[in-house]
Amino acid sequence: MIRNLIREIQKKEAPIVVGLDPAAKLIPQHLIEEEFEKEGCGSGEDPAAEAFSRAIIRFNERLIDSIHDLVPAVKPQIAMYEQFGIPGLYAYRHTVEYARKKGLIVIADIKRGDIGSTSEAYAMAHLGKSRAKEYSFPAFDADFATVNPYLGSDGVMPFVEACNREDRGIFVLVKTSNPSSGEFQDRPVSDGNGRLLYELVADKVREWGELSMDGDYSNVGAVTGATYPEQGRILRKLMPKTYFLVPGYGAQGGTAKDLAPFFNEDGLGAIVNSSRGIIGAYRQEAYASYGEERFDEAAREAVLRMRDDLKILFR
Amino acid sequence: MIRNLIREIQKKEAPIVVGLDPAAKLIPQHLIEEEFEKEGCGSGEDPAAEAFSRAIIRFNERLIDSIHDLVPAVKPQIAMYEQFGIPGLYAYRHTVEYARKKGLIVIADIKRGDIGSTSEAYAMAHLGKSRAKEYSFPAFDADFATVNPYLGSDGVMPFVEACNREDRGIFVLVKTSNPSSGEFQDRPVSDGNGRLLYELVADKVREWGELSMDGDYSNVGAVTGATYPEQGRILRKLMPKTYFLVPGYGAQGGTAKDLAPFFNEDGLGAIVNSSRGIIGAYRQEAYASYGEERFDEAAREAVLRMRDDLKILFR
Repeated sequence: MIRNLIREIQKKEAPIVVGLDPAAKLIPQHLIEEEFEKEGCGSGEDPAAEAFSRAIIRFNERLIDSIHDLVPAVKPQIAMYEQFGIPGLYAYRHTVEYARKKGLIVIADIKRGDIGSTSEAYAMAHLGKSRAKEYSFPAFDADFATVNPYLGSDGVMPFVEACNREDRGIFVLVKTSNPSSGEFQDRPVSDGNGRLLYELVADKVREWGELSMDGDYSNVGAVTGATYPEQGRILRKLMPKTYFLVPGYGAQGGTAKDLAPFFNEDGLGAIVNSSRGIIGAYRQEAYASYGEERFDEAAREAVLRMRDDLKILFR
Repeated sequence: MIRNLIREIQKKEAPIVVGLDPAAKLIPQHLIEEEFEKEGCGSGEDPAAEAFSRAIIRFNERLIDSIHDLVPAVKPQIAMYEQFGIPGLYAYRHTVEYARKKGLIVIADIKRGDIGSTSEAYAMAHLGKSRAKEYSFPAFDADFATVNPYLGSDGVMPFVEACNREDRGIFVLVKTSNPSSGEFQDRPVSDGNGRLLYELVADKVREWGELSMDGDYSNVGAVTGATYPEQGRILRKLMPKTYFLVPGYGAQGGTAKDLAPFFNEDGLGAIVNSSRGIIGAYRQEAYASYGEERFDEAAREAVLRMRDDLKILFR
């Protein structure tokens, strides 16, 4: 699967993934109001959650229509859908399906991870097909998923197995973009070499990655925050064949210059996420001329500017 | 909220939580067959997932009816529902609501954890109400949730804030029950005292816990696997006011003797989970006389035996 992602990155000349994270404040007000004026079309149990979820579907469809020719991938953050309950997760599933139909690769930002048998259920739910008795069916079928490593190998291996079985990929959290990520991830461990916890996690990601190679890179990638370029440099060396999913560009503070250490000399090795910076572009002064109604055109221009900004990194 | 849990534990004289983890192999075959014979009653998009989900609802309702007077709490593992997609999550929500209506405390085993704004969405989704613009509504409203600490304080604090705002609780993963939990959790860190990563996590859990005290204990609890009693002894001392959720008893190998270190001298401080050992009791030789049809009575007897087994720990 990583080969597909690389092919799309090269074809579109854009190592960019757009985060489809529809926090309530990012959804244009007119979409919300229009949906609240309609009759409930779901089970009717929670009209507010249903109206928001329908607004999210319209928001995402127009965003996807507007940017699908420019970027290789989108990354829906499932929490932003889960907060709207069942209707929200319906909107999530619809978004995954709609994006894939439009030729986009979908990275499910789910950060799941549990004991072996439970991780296996998550892997089936999000990568390929679920299996139960003699039946199989897709649940929330994405191309990649993000995975939390805190439980160690037996929490991660069911995802690696799904990568091989279903030709999918994962990105394991190594060094996250948030301010307190160092609290545990940057702890020096007593191995005599003064190494830090995230470096040990990186070692494991490389090992897991060897079990699912797909061309020059592995289907097992790593999440490495743009907000920590120094750590990115170290991690790039520790995991030469690991693709990096790099969040934190734009709204979280990372700049294009910060991104260089995450890329390999072949111009590959990293895909940079922007969420608010793209889907909420219409709320920024720089894109104010589009107005709320033309949020999708603002998003398209924001993608084009981001592509220009990253051009120096990508050959 | 922890005070409510302790009151129920004392009233029922059972520091026991029943894991409602309906892996396909645990659902009695006759329930599955009956549901496959019915017409689809949902959106009809995925009849197999819907039939399984209806079977899960019937399985869980009968289990809850059979044990709700004996135990204080149930713990549905959301992955086992997520694997059935939207219908599965409908069964999950129904199970949470049904259990709470029957007077049970519900511990949502979701192991979520992300950057701050995302953890906030998860906390709203699973503990109390979601808020969006001027609206509020419940999504998957449980009493407790399990939380992954890998991202540090700003990934956990939104859950702690939800505990205070909504009178709920959390259990943070500290030392998990699975075989490879030591890979990262048992790493010695270079703090000059030879301490291990899970002990540092425990320090943080204690700090977070001080922000949400509720009587003698905190709403911020810890997950500590029954399979690691020595670590349990250490953690009990590090976190005297932290309630422990202890998985791994029974099917995963922990015994009653292993559980003593997790309890305080007041006979409180821990609640022990059993999943397969209870809901799949009908499949064990010891309960074979019940047969598959009377799986709920087998579960009740398994709870009674577990309560007897734990009596030595609980005064």
